[in-house]
Amino acid sequence: MKTPLLTGEDPEAKRAELKAYFQNTWSTYESLFELIAQDKAFFLRPEPLRHPLIFYFGHTAVFFVNKLILGKFLDHRIDPRLESLCAIGVDEMSWDDLDSRHYEWPSADEVRAYRGKVASTIESLIDQMPLSLPIQQDSLAWVILMGCEHERIHLETSSVIMRMLPLEYLQQDPRWQACPYHGDAPSNHLKAVSTQTIVKGKKLEDLTYGWDNEYGEQVTEVEAFDAATYLVSNREFIDFINAGGYQAPDYWTEEGQAWLRFSRAEMPRFWLRKNGQYYQRNLIEEIPLPANWPVEVNYLEAKAFCNWKAKSTGETIRLPSEAEWYCLRELISTDLPTWQEAPGNINLEYFASSCPIDKFETAGFYDIIGNVWQWTESPIDGYTGFEVHPLYDDFSTPTFDGKHNLFKGGSWISTGNEALKSARYAFRRHFFQHAGFRYIRAQQAEPVQAPVHNYETDMEITCQLEAHFGKPPTGVPNFQVNTVKLLLEEITPKPEAKVLDIGCGVGRASFELAKHAAQVDAIDFTARNIQQGYALLEQGEKRYTSQTEGELVAFNTIDLHTLGYEQDKHKINFIQGDPCNLKPRFSGYDLVLANNLIDRLNQPARFLEQMWERLNDKGYLVITSTYDWQETFTNKQYWLGGIKVNGENFTTLDGLTELLIPKFELVSVKSLPFVLPQNKRRAIYATAEMTIWRKR
Amino acid sequence: MKTPLLTGEDPEAKRAELKAYFQNTWSTYESLFELIAQDKAFFLRPEPLRHPLIFYFGHTAVFFVNKLILGKFLDHRIDPRLESLCAIGVDEMSWDDLDSRHYEWPSADEVRAYRGKVASTIESLIDQMPLSLPIQQDSLAWVILMGCEHERIHLETSSVIMRMLPLEYLQQDPRWQACPYHGDAPSNHLKAVSTQTIVKGKKLEDLTYGWDNEYGEQVTEVEAFDAATYLVSNREFIDFINAGGYQAPDYWTEEGQAWLRFSRAEMPRFWLRKNGQYYQRNLIEEIPLPANWPVEVNYLEAKAFCNWKAKSTGETIRLPSEAEWYCLRELISTDLPTWQEAPGNINLEYFASSCPIDKFETAGFYDIIGNVWQWTESPIDGYTGFEVHPLYDDFSTPTFDGKHNLFKGGSWISTGNEALKSARYAFRRHFFQHAGFRYIRAQQAEPVQAPVHNYETDMEITCQLEAHFGKPPTGVPNFQVNTVKLLLEEITPKPEAKVLDIGCGVGRASFELAKHAAQVDAIDFTARNIQQGYALLEQGEKRYTSQTEGELVAFNTIDLHTLGYEQDKHKINFIQGDPCNLKPRFSGYDLVLANNLIDRLNQPARFLEQMWERLNDKGYLVITSTYDWQETFTNKQYWLGGIKVNGENFTTLDGLTELLIPKFELVSVKSLPFVLPQNKRRAIYATAEMTIWRKR
Repeated sequence: MKTPLLTGEDPEAKRAELKAYFQNTWSTYESLFELIAQDKAFFLRPEPLRHPLIFYFGHTAVFFVNKLILGKFLDHRIDPRLESLCAIGVDEMSWDDLDSRHYEWPSADEVRAYRGKVASTIESLIDQMPLSLPIQQDSLAWVILMGCEHERIHLETSSVIMRMLPLEYLQQDPRWQACPYHGDAPSNHLKAVSTQTIVKGKKLEDLTYGWDNEYGEQVTEVEAFDAATYLVSNREFIDFINAGGYQAPDYWTEEGQAWLRFSRAEMPRFWLRKNGQYYQRNLIEEIPLPANWPVEVNYLEAKAFCNWKAKSTGETIRLPSEAEWYCLRELISTDLPTWQEAPGNINLEYFASSCPIDKFETAGFYDIIGNVWQWTESPIDGYTGFEVHPLYDDFSTPTFDGKHNLFKGGSWISTGNEALKSARYAFRRHFFQHAGFRYIRAQQAEPVQAPVHNYETDMEITCQLEAHFGKPPTGVPNFQVNTVKLLLEEITPKPEAKVLDIGCGVGRASFELAKHAAQVDAIDFTARNIQQGYALLEQGEKRYTSQTEGELVAFNTIDLHTLGYEQDKHKINFIQGDPCNLKPRFSGYDLVLANNLIDRLNQPARFLEQMWERLNDKGYLVITSTYDWQETFTNKQYWLGGIKVNGENFTTLDGLTELLIPKFELVSVKSLPFVLPQNKRRAIYATAEMTIWRKR
Repeated sequence: MKTPLLTGEDPEAKRAELKAYFQNTWSTYESLFELIAQDKAFFLRPEPLRHPLIFYFGHTAVFFVNKLILGKFLDHRIDPRLESLCAIGVDEMSWDDLDSRHYEWPSADEVRAYRGKVASTIESLIDQMPLSLPIQQDSLAWVILMGCEHERIHLETSSVIMRMLPLEYLQQDPRWQACPYHGDAPSNHLKAVSTQTIVKGKKLEDLTYGWDNEYGEQVTEVEAFDAATYLVSNREFIDFINAGGYQAPDYWTEEGQAWLRFSRAEMPRFWLRKNGQYYQRNLIEEIPLPANWPVEVNYLEAKAFCNWKAKSTGETIRLPSEAEWYCLRELISTDLPTWQEAPGNINLEYFASSCPIDKFETAGFYDIIGNVWQWTESPIDGYTGFEVHPLYDDFSTPTFDGKHNLFKGGSWISTGNEALKSARYAFRRHFFQHAGFRYIRAQQAEPVQAPVHNYETDMEITCQLEAHFGKPPTGVPNFQVNTVKLLLEEITPKPEAKVLDIGCGVGRASFELAKHAAQVDAIDFTARNIQQGYALLEQGEKRYTSQTEGELVAFNTIDLHTLGYEQDKHKINFIQGDPCNLKPRFSGYDLVLANNLIDRLNQPARFLEQMWERLNDKGYLVITSTYDWQETFTNKQYWLGGIKVNGENFTTLDGLTELLIPKFELVSVKSLPFVLPQNKRRAIYATAEMTIWRKR
């Protein structure tokens, strides 16, 4: 059964469809677990880094309940103990942090009974829920779909774990019939794929359920390349093994070498060697290695194979990028909702296993989708416009770390969202799924792709990012933008003006100033601040978390395009430097902005004294500060004001005037609000003073 | 010459009067220093705890310049070095903190030249300044008067220091003629003073210049007492010495004993004993002790004398309070501006020294004003309505510490403001001026007077006081007041309601709640918070400083009367207690308010769980919080929310609901702004959530 369309004419028909889809998902999942012949097998740990299968058996039901409660669609728990035990631990997104606590797992019968109760609850929710079409992301129907699609993911991942269970614990089942066809593999060859523009990303109005990371847009210009017509078969991979590939570190990335040392792998994970012959473990059977089935490896092995092949052939053989995979995918004109028969071994439409690599052809390529997933060179990242779904904020965000690579195309057991063209799943590069690869011969040894926009989480930096680029509290203007606006009321820079934004922080004022000058040198003492501005320049986007309450966070994106800074960003130079000890080359400025800086310097007077020399004649020095003098930043003897002098109150404005008036004229004094957010509920709220000085 | 009236018909006549007053002040001060016969005497330190006289010679001119610059009435310094050297150090308000730095004092001629330049500057300012009548406190004319009155204070204090200079350095001067009359002292006796109501305090519209501490109002009911008709004479004091008074610790306060051990005093400071005979040092002469002149002592000696006399006579002999002194002062119908001839040895109208104690009589009492100052039992404090003058914010405030006692009446050299009825000067109790005392026989051994309203300066407390009682930023309601307002929208307490304000802080919400209930128990874990609320209850006023910039502060007063809390304050009980471990007696409440508390407790759930038992049926629990969970206050395992539970976001509202819903109904959830000021320019600005729960 296919994932339901979000649209339709008749809500009641859609309600019935949703219920049927739920029931189909539920029963398919349970039928997989019915392959387990003895309940004790639920508690084995064939893969020591994962929870036993009992966890996964309960987990998909628990997920439904926990999301319904989070969304306030359900007001009571069904089994608090189970809903805690089977909620978190090792799922495919965070498989490396299994802790060593002792888990008091429920019995299989307990979980079966629990699943029954949850199913009834969900069915009656489906019966009674308000339902209007199209289904919106904040509706209960969406949460039902989320639970179904989540369970379908675990249908696949649990089937992978089952391939690790000793066969004695499993039983045959007519519903899970492996492909009966094995034979020699055809020899692989390369076939041209022409240059094209790939537009990726699901639109919000798309007709099918999507995970957050699928939405947004990314446009990639893909240069022509040649792709292997077939997935790499077991037969083809044996050449790599025979060439000593697993023993040749040179073919492996650094990460791959580390994994090799740890795993001591000598062949693919689901192979075994008995009496000098290779076998392959499938879901519920072990068969002599089927030469014409796709090899199943992790990214690291696929990458090593490509490196070996590149070396052997002297060609730039590598894995495709996500965009390059889509160049092939474009050859198939259908997608899950519209096909009558799947154009590949996918969606459980044909086999409960892989099948020969030459069975499903489109335009000269085989297995563009289905059979096994195909690793790519692309670490997963959100597209431009990415937004976290509030009910599942850790589905994607933890994987935007450059360590999770996308694989594409789906496997024989990929159903629902997994089988859609828009599907995007990523795993750690050492992880095993029903996954193999297709290699390509490209112009470049590495595909052109942007670095991953990981989430900045360091509170010191994220508070700065939020202050510069976040939404300020109602009624308060953005401090950086306002600073530039207020100084422009007094100063009209010439188009060729050269500007210094000293103490630029994460750079917002520099972007504003760049609209009004020819060059902006943006200097900050803190390298991590400069890195943020630089990343914005280079990547156009920057993501960061912000604290909402306790350890909870919101996910935010800064996007230069939306902010209108794309056009002038080339004028900005982000440079790390000490404001009190700037290199001589930083001079000849028409305008120097020292924004919120002086009360954070250890010798503010020393800083100010050198500004005169760095400015052009009639150049402007603009100082903003909340005059928040603290001994931690500035030894009291160096405070410019906020002290008693000769027993009298001596403000910072007094001090600035005394220091600057011999060489500057005071043009203007203004007051402006300054907000430094701490979390969703809290901010430092201050009044800054701006003084504008013109060089005499 | 008398201190000018602030009013008048003709500004130009007033300008001339001000100029003449300035010139008279200036020349009188200089004529005092002309008593010094050799310039080297300017640099001696007859009193090692004070600066040499050269400091004082320059100081009064420097003061003019520094205040004019502070007030932006002068834009340049006349001599920066001198204006720093002679600005601060030992004045009569802070005489104990002389540091041991080496001072490069200017020569006497340098100071003379400097004084000349300053005088010209001031005279031309007086000539040119805008002048409208009456003279306002923010005008330049006020600053001119401030400088004159300040110099007149130093005319007196410098004359005291001169009494310590060896006579060889001083010369006779016809302008400084001591009283030639000495003789036997009349015997002192007591005379009745009837009960009266004394209203102290200068009104803002008063006709003469005043220091900040003189303004405001204080009404005191004074019970009848008997006062000595004469000041204590040298003759009368000898009895105390002969009785071994200086060797009998019992007569001395603890502070007095400490001073005795330090000073090794055996007689008054200006007495000396040669060849078995007492002498007295006056300004420029040493004479055999004049028996009928008033004895000059510090407060500690005066107090010891009274204690001795009380013990000898078995009567409650003591010094008068400020209010009791005013009972005598009321007997004189004139004041400086209106008298033709001073009704006492004051204002330099008669002698450049004390004179016999039986020379100036009014209604049977002698020397009600003049001759020597008269120590009182009253530590100085601001009256209700006290406000600091912005150009001299450390004139009074440092003396509101309970360690500075008022003396009244003025001495022979008290002129200008010092000679006014409204004058209020206070010194440390061990300090010497031209001061003696009159004793009284009272009903009570101690006069009835409120404790001194010292300025709370501890930042932790002052920020709380400012948050509770300060002026919130524009557009933001006071959090405490708003909390009560919002809860009253949902809850209408019965008149007999019993309320618990738990975590009351410095108590603002308790005062608000007291308007709507019969009893408010206001409990806080921090004793210093409770002390603030308690002080407000007891004294009706509380003073505190708040940071403006760096080390600079503003001075603030909380006044229950103005806030409208006087009527219900008796309903409040401020109690120190641990919210997580309250005594059983704190129960039977109709309303419990936990304001900004839960995220500062180490075990918030434990606190909340006991609230049900402490509430009456259908009683309300009101919780406000910004949910600012921090490990420093609450171990993460005890956070009520802001955490991931079963992998899902779990807010504090979720946690509160889970905890309370079995025994409470959730009546309302509201949002309200919370502001915690840090200084004049900075505040923590947060959004709190209020949840109102009704006991099931």
